[in-house]
Amino acid sequence: MTQETNAAATLLAAARFDANGLIAAVAQQHDTHEVLMLAWMNRDALAETLATGRAVYFSRSRGKLWRKGEESGQVQRVIDLRLDCDGDAVLLLVDQTGVACHTGRRSCFYTAIRDGQVVNLTEPLADPKALYARPHA
Amino acid sequence: MTQETNAAATLLAAARFDANGLIAAVAQQHDTHEVLMLAWMNRDALAETLATGRAVYFSRSRGKLWRKGEESGQVQRVIDLRLDCDGDAVLLLVDQTGVACHTGRRSCFYTAIRDGQVVNLTEPLADPKALYARPHA
Repeated sequence: MTQETNAAATLLAAARFDANGLIAAVAQQHDTHEVLMLAWMNRDALAETLATGRAVYFSRSRGKLWRKGEESGQVQRVIDLRLDCDGDAVLLLVDQTGVACHTGRRSCFYTAIRDGQVVNLTEPLADPKALYARPHA
Repeated sequence: MTQETNAAATLLAAARFDANGLIAAVAQQHDTHEVLMLAWMNRDALAETLATGRAVYFSRSRGKLWRKGEESGQVQRVIDLRLDCDGDAVLLLVDQTGVACHTGRRSCFYTAIRDGQVVNLTEPLADPKALYARPHA
């Protein structure tokens, strides 16, 4: 076992998964610092993310590993991975290819209040039908 | 009911709380874009955050509303609040007074791998004992 995998094992041991075996993971674009999405990882997803440098989540609806971009091509290269103070959340600094959101928007966080109305702050940059054969989440 | 509270009610209705009645909330410093912390909100916490413009979470360990900074003074003024595409995560753009983390660090996300070792990227800026009579989480 290399130093690298020792460190990954140490980080994995410090991660606190919930009763469903999951930990919340926030992806942030490393250079613009835009928060792109929040998803979930199980232990296998976190281990594979650490080993491969590609963001891997756990799809709660599909009940299996979700290698981000495997279907859409919108992959996330992981620049840095940080665990929070009590070990129950992960921050990924990523380089996002294309768009993070399954709606075709760069970020999933586009719903907000403006002038007393709930609005979409951004419009899709890509056609979701072209990205996915079916919804991802 | 004003337009403002109509919008808050619409946003609340769009939020999808989990089986425990909670939604994940990410706090990001609005100007530096640093991701400060991830915590949880129940419906009351989200409603009070929208109504008051101060970040209110739900403390899972204490089983009650956690008005961020009520004990430590390290409050978060909410500049913007965004719901994600499937309604199960919230992004708060905040102005953080002092430090977000109960360890006295600006951000909770300070544990990472460097040169094959798990390290703390930052040191406390404040003495946790001076911030809290007891741990917050």
